[in-house]
Amino acid sequence: MSAITYELVKTDPETGARAGILHTPHGSFPTPIFMPVGTQGSVKGVSPEEVKELGGNIILGNTYHLFLRPGSELVKEMGGLHKFMNWDGAILTDSGGFQVFSLGELRKITEEGVTFRSHIDGSKKFLSPEVSMKVQMDLGSDIVMAFDECIPYPADYEYAKRSTERTTRWAKRCKDAMTSPDQGLFGIVQGGMYKDLRTQSVKELVELDFPGYAVGGLSVGEPKDLMYEMLDHTVKQLPENKPRYLMGVGTPDCLVEAVMHGIDMFDCVFPTRVARNGTAMTWDGRLVMKNSEHTHDKRPIEEGCDCYACRNYSRAYIRHLVRANEIFGLRLLSIHNLRFLQRFTAAMREAIIEERFGNFRREFLNNYIYGSKSKQED
Amino acid sequence: MSAITYELVKTDPETGARAGILHTPHGSFPTPIFMPVGTQGSVKGVSPEEVKELGGNIILGNTYHLFLRPGSELVKEMGGLHKFMNWDGAILTDSGGFQVFSLGELRKITEEGVTFRSHIDGSKKFLSPEVSMKVQMDLGSDIVMAFDECIPYPADYEYAKRSTERTTRWAKRCKDAMTSPDQGLFGIVQGGMYKDLRTQSVKELVELDFPGYAVGGLSVGEPKDLMYEMLDHTVKQLPENKPRYLMGVGTPDCLVEAVMHGIDMFDCVFPTRVARNGTAMTWDGRLVMKNSEHTHDKRPIEEGCDCYACRNYSRAYIRHLVRANEIFGLRLLSIHNLRFLQRFTAAMREAIIEERFGNFRREFLNNYIYGSKSKQED
Repeated sequence: MSAITYELVKTDPETGARAGILHTPHGSFPTPIFMPVGTQGSVKGVSPEEVKELGGNIILGNTYHLFLRPGSELVKEMGGLHKFMNWDGAILTDSGGFQVFSLGELRKITEEGVTFRSHIDGSKKFLSPEVSMKVQMDLGSDIVMAFDECIPYPADYEYAKRSTERTTRWAKRCKDAMTSPDQGLFGIVQGGMYKDLRTQSVKELVELDFPGYAVGGLSVGEPKDLMYEMLDHTVKQLPENKPRYLMGVGTPDCLVEAVMHGIDMFDCVFPTRVARNGTAMTWDGRLVMKNSEHTHDKRPIEEGCDCYACRNYSRAYIRHLVRANEIFGLRLLSIHNLRFLQRFTAAMREAIIEERFGNFRREFLNNYIYGSKSKQED
Repeated sequence: MSAITYELVKTDPETGARAGILHTPHGSFPTPIFMPVGTQGSVKGVSPEEVKELGGNIILGNTYHLFLRPGSELVKEMGGLHKFMNWDGAILTDSGGFQVFSLGELRKITEEGVTFRSHIDGSKKFLSPEVSMKVQMDLGSDIVMAFDECIPYPADYEYAKRSTERTTRWAKRCKDAMTSPDQGLFGIVQGGMYKDLRTQSVKELVELDFPGYAVGGLSVGEPKDLMYEMLDHTVKQLPENKPRYLMGVGTPDCLVEAVMHGIDMFDCVFPTRVARNGTAMTWDGRLVMKNSEHTHDKRPIEEGCDCYACRNYSRAYIRHLVRANEIFGLRLLSIHNLRFLQRFTAAMREAIIEERFGNFRREFLNNYIYGSKSKQED
């Protein structure tokens, strides 16, 4: 029995959207699920208790960052990432692959792994399937991601094929290197924007029988239509009894589309990053809190939201904090935005269970994209 | 009956240090008391609930900052500063005088008041006793500070005398302008480093019968010995049944000396400012959290501290957060440092009540100043 299992509760007959339960060594959580990102062992500006209170129950840690600083051996010595950062929920760690490949000229890929220079001090470092597994075992995350190569967009067919096949070989090496029974290793489907390569990648990874699968190499600059086409093509071939994770996606419109295509899990820095820019996420679209329209507004960021920020503070106050560069303002917005995505995934789940996800999606997109505008026209 | 009253509980027979209770419309609090600073309507990085939990019960707001942004009329419209910032404890607001005079060349003082340029947008602004009272009434603070002129150090006798006498005239204008019965107006003793002017200032202000007195114009660059000499000379002449407030002082060594001289109230940005620089305050002196000595340290910042940071996080983790520029690290250090000053003032109070303040002071100073060094020599 794997450390990670997925229980399918309901598939929406119209769209294929799924409601399920993700079982981990640190709790069982309803899906679709959004995972707040704690890149360096902290969800930026938010305490573990606040993440819990806003409904977050599985967070993401970044292998690349923690490998460089403070180093996985230190985290292990301190009792693992859960204990180090005082988080008793579940943790998913990525493999470091995506960050390393994003370094561009600063890294060199061979069959063995990737040599790169640290963005912190320029020192030479090496990541490979075996090193990534070792780091993730040191961190002690519940869900471990295979070390893959993220194919850039655009990429020619030959490159994409060679890379996809190497990702499979690396996935096998990850599986061999992962010796901790308390951690579940997810495979990552690649294949670029080529359907036959996506099919090949799925087949090879499913043969390796991972407890979950991520769809990688999407949201890397391709048109959204192409992304959804690839997603649909890929997800349809994934086993029904395993969770499906779309990495790095966190805008509500992308979430609802991906859920429609059968995705269960998401992570993204988007909600906390835009919060630090003074932007709030709402069902009607984004609110730029600096705008003068909020100056005298006694209402919370969003009526009906039950987050700490909306329960206690006015738009006028949050606008003041953002303008005055008070970090408490960024905390309030981070809490609100993360809570918004929890409420949003919970609403999607309810709609799936009640067989009205198609309507939910249409109404949401209409309101989210045109909501603010139509209100102005009232 | 004034909105603010002071109850003297005990005077240490050896030193004259006082334990008392400060009664405000938002609660009664033991003194000596340290007030965390919430310059712009937020104690930097710390929520109101966290301030409460760490023992803070009266915070300071800055008239200068709130006057410029968001403006006191907006705060009034939003229900006052307590409601605006979700703080149900007490609030003391300064008069704006200190900040305005600190602007140097950017301001011009006349008998009527001070014309200055905003540091935010350069626009021309005017503060006077009447304007300061109006702003502080809009803010609705429990304790209002008179609009005074802070005499720089050094200053010649003639200047100091003229300025001190104007501060008295302004104090009278403040008293006339303050019409809110729920707010207590404190006078501010000036007089520079001249004992006869200090005596004159005390006499004139005591005649105006304020519910509390601040000692102003100290800790402005003068040698510490001179500061304590002036403090001692001034405080001795203040009425016993009124609280005494030393503005802008927040290092433990200054606090213990000032308490010895009969001061009851303090405020300072020091604990939160050094926290943002990665420094922790402890009974043994300051800890620079970035230092490599903390790399593997599983201990809390300070053994025996009951703050949120010390209950849940290791020095190793906090060091990591500080090095990685994670704002959660600054929050943990801010909470710890503010809690440290609460524990410190509580310990002073206990020592006063138990008539052992003199010993407490000597032991503390010995440990605080030489503690870390002697431990290294062990």
